[in-house]
Amino acid sequence: MSDCLFCRIVGGDLPSDKLFEDDLLFAFRDVQPMAPVHILIVPKEHIATLNDTTLDDQPLLGHMLMTARDLAADEGVGESGYRLALNCNQEGGQTVYHLHLHLLAGRQLTHLR
Amino acid sequence: MSDCLFCRIVGGDLPSDKLFEDDLLFAFRDVQPMAPVHILIVPKEHIATLNDTTLDDQPLLGHMLMTARDLAADEGVGESGYRLALNCNQEGGQTVYHLHLHLLAGRQLTHLR
Repeated sequence: MSDCLFCRIVGGDLPSDKLFEDDLLFAFRDVQPMAPVHILIVPKEHIATLNDTTLDDQPLLGHMLMTARDLAADEGVGESGYRLALNCNQEGGQTVYHLHLHLLAGRQLTHLR
Repeated sequence: MSDCLFCRIVGGDLPSDKLFEDDLLFAFRDVQPMAPVHILIVPKEHIATLNDTTLDDQPLLGHMLMTARDLAADEGVGESGYRLALNCNQEGGQTVYHLHLHLLAGRQLTHLR
């Protein structure tokens, strides 16, 4: 069994509040939400950080952003607004080393800090 | 002349500290940096928000993320870490209505807020 938290969620070894899945991506609610809407969009393939992507992953990355946009619409926050964040490595605030995109919404998000 | 701030920067009508340019993208330092490294990556084409992209823009969006990653490496913060943020509409904190990706780095970035 993988020791990667998100690989275990994607594989169904750990439960999650799943919102979306296709061949490439898996999306679920963050268990420690920082906003009323807090969703994580992750590739099914294990990629540790954005630094580990290659040019072949460019369509995957675009698909992550468009999926986040569609999930924002599904959650009813597309028009009110939302923030997408992708943290890379320690100073970026990355805590799980499986590439993931945060979708935050449902309240007024403050300036970037 | 366009009344869009970023279209004017892309077109050279307004000065900027440009770091990168290709056929699709233009990247420059934010004039009000929130971190020691604060770069904006924008499409040359005027697209107001992420909600206004279509499936045809998926490669462009992937290219924005990979360009941000490359700029982080250029700035010497790829390994220490960085955050990418894309704000959509008012509650997301979007202030300029020309799609842009923030690259923040150079200090410990805090939890998402």
